[in-house]
Amino acid sequence: MSDAPDVGELNPPNRTLMGPGPSDVHPRVLRAMSTPLVGHLDPSFIEIMDEVQELMRYTFRTDNQWTIPVSGTGSASMEAAIGNLVEPGDTVLVPTNGYFGGRMESMAERAGGSVVHVDAPWGKPLAPADVQDAFDEHQPDVFGFVHAETSTGVKQPNVPELTSIAHDHDAYVVADCVTSLGGVELEVDDWGIDVAYSGPQKCLSCPPGASPLTLNDRAMDKVLSREEEPRSWYLDLSLLEGYWGDDRSYHHTAPITNVYAIREALRLVAEEGIESRWERHRRVAGALKAGVEAMGLGLNPEDEYWLPSLNAVLVPGGVDAGAAIDYVLDHYDLEIAGGLGALAGDIFRIGCMGYAAQPENVAFLMTALGEALEAQDVDVDVDAGFAAMRERLHQ
Amino acid sequence: MSDAPDVGELNPPNRTLMGPGPSDVHPRVLRAMSTPLVGHLDPSFIEIMDEVQELMRYTFRTDNQWTIPVSGTGSASMEAAIGNLVEPGDTVLVPTNGYFGGRMESMAERAGGSVVHVDAPWGKPLAPADVQDAFDEHQPDVFGFVHAETSTGVKQPNVPELTSIAHDHDAYVVADCVTSLGGVELEVDDWGIDVAYSGPQKCLSCPPGASPLTLNDRAMDKVLSREEEPRSWYLDLSLLEGYWGDDRSYHHTAPITNVYAIREALRLVAEEGIESRWERHRRVAGALKAGVEAMGLGLNPEDEYWLPSLNAVLVPGGVDAGAAIDYVLDHYDLEIAGGLGALAGDIFRIGCMGYAAQPENVAFLMTALGEALEAQDVDVDVDAGFAAMRERLHQ
Repeated sequence: MSDAPDVGELNPPNRTLMGPGPSDVHPRVLRAMSTPLVGHLDPSFIEIMDEVQELMRYTFRTDNQWTIPVSGTGSASMEAAIGNLVEPGDTVLVPTNGYFGGRMESMAERAGGSVVHVDAPWGKPLAPADVQDAFDEHQPDVFGFVHAETSTGVKQPNVPELTSIAHDHDAYVVADCVTSLGGVELEVDDWGIDVAYSGPQKCLSCPPGASPLTLNDRAMDKVLSREEEPRSWYLDLSLLEGYWGDDRSYHHTAPITNVYAIREALRLVAEEGIESRWERHRRVAGALKAGVEAMGLGLNPEDEYWLPSLNAVLVPGGVDAGAAIDYVLDHYDLEIAGGLGALAGDIFRIGCMGYAAQPENVAFLMTALGEALEAQDVDVDVDAGFAAMRERLHQ
Repeated sequence: MSDAPDVGELNPPNRTLMGPGPSDVHPRVLRAMSTPLVGHLDPSFIEIMDEVQELMRYTFRTDNQWTIPVSGTGSASMEAAIGNLVEPGDTVLVPTNGYFGGRMESMAERAGGSVVHVDAPWGKPLAPADVQDAFDEHQPDVFGFVHAETSTGVKQPNVPELTSIAHDHDAYVVADCVTSLGGVELEVDDWGIDVAYSGPQKCLSCPPGASPLTLNDRAMDKVLSREEEPRSWYLDLSLLEGYWGDDRSYHHTAPITNVYAIREALRLVAEEGIESRWERHRRVAGALKAGVEAMGLGLNPEDEYWLPSLNAVLVPGGVDAGAAIDYVLDHYDLEIAGGLGALAGDIFRIGCMGYAAQPENVAFLMTALGEALEAQDVDVDVDAGFAAMRERLHQ
């Protein structure tokens, strides 16, 4: 057996995070994470759980009783949603227009569902007529869609139209809100979304580890009347009901510190006001969009489905996207990302999320990205970009 | 929709945690958690991941390449172990001697396994002869046991005997080391354990959220040659192999801050030295044991299978255990717990784990518990307890 490893002090570089997440964490959230722990059944922790639920309902714009942080990162809340709602034999309709539709498909299949698709290319939203056609053809029991596609920077418009189609067919609607919650307009109740999940490390500017999930009574009735128990014990909502519901009985040890963190992050949302927060994202990301466009770069999505929290900037012809991404990391400690899957090499993914959605970060991004592109002999007009940015900020 | 909730500053009470976990977190670990984040694919984070793996191998006493923190609390690492190793149709042998054997059973069934039992009453360890009989009768593919039963305070002795029986039958051994890792002698490689999992919030004194798991090559070969994919996408080790293995490709967003925390907690283990740490737990918990016995209380387990990290103290006849637990919480901000399941009302569960395994905490516990029992008119000799405690500490 080896000797004790000699590992030095934790000393990561001081990055600015403008990739697809995690985003820069608010200092108050970091401070909350150094709070000493109480037990997961402590009366004081029960009170904290209640507060988190209340703040999370406010942020999701829902009155759903069943609104909790799942003990894991965003993919855990996704699997909690799908793994509990989908029963063996259910037909599940998922989209093809981005990376996370594929993840939904894999989870639905593992839950015993049969997957069918509503088709749309990567980088485009779903068209209601196509959703209607898919419903008529397949009569799915569960319909999943991605409200804010982190892989493509596309915001799904027309959500109430999609949920109406699903409900006309007695189906349940699951919405991936990982990159919209707390940053982009989202109305869980008004839009008729039955189940929504998210992650804390995007527009909530909170470290990953406890991830928002909400289900309305109709969805929870399906979950609680399953014939076969869900395939995960850890994520079984009928068992979690014992802990988060009235009993407060032990299921698993909650990630106390992550609950402290999300409480502080959601408290910051409540202090700012959810509508003001959406407006800040629109304004600051709008300045980023105006700035990069004036520099001579294009954005992939059209304005109608532009996602303020994740900007898919087209990579100019001849540019090595990976080299530009490495350049801004090496020279400016700035994290941005490239495209995934069908869009690999074609887009830069530039996040503008939560605490990081600030004018100074937009100016920083334009400076660094402009220099990285100039280093590859691309002619960009950074001065024009700054002028357009300032104009948009002052509107 | 409701107005923004008005939730005050995070201000939990200042508890001392001597229940079954979480235990008191080391201040250096709390400080690490307030470190700003880097991205989960940042080159600097890859280095941190390597360091965590190296430190975790040291703590598990293993050379297993496959040694990672699972992105969730201890039950997530348990489900990762069982959900990946157990394939539909496998026969899985689990124990009946505590709460966590029952949890293994539920997870194994959800993974598609057929569960059989090796019987032992709650509060007793497994006898090798009974394990042998169960193997001869059922020929299981996978054998799970609990090294340190948090529900009963029982340490499983004779581990190498059990693993030999299993290997003679070509079975795989899964060990629950949630309450032993980092506090109680554990030799994953020397004892022939194929898969071991733990939680960070016990003897590692780290907040829950990223949980140790290790598999040897033999077990990983079974996992990677499954005919049917595991039922959880989030916990699928063949996918996690892409992130923690050589590719470093995206699977899910790792809980960065929890990885920072477990790195610091494991670094503290390496600084102290694993064997010194075991010895400290034996000495300090030994003083606790000697103290409460001299006060006139009994411990449930016999010395041979006493678990230093979790002491099951018998509740004296006529005492309301719940009232005594509430008394020490209300008067001393001290958390201890009662029994679960078959031992509910019969034992106090008193943790002596990691950072909390210190003489001052033993004295504090005896003071508080003594007073709580006296408040219920129980005749306890706290002075004798203190004398015995001091004697044991000075040995």
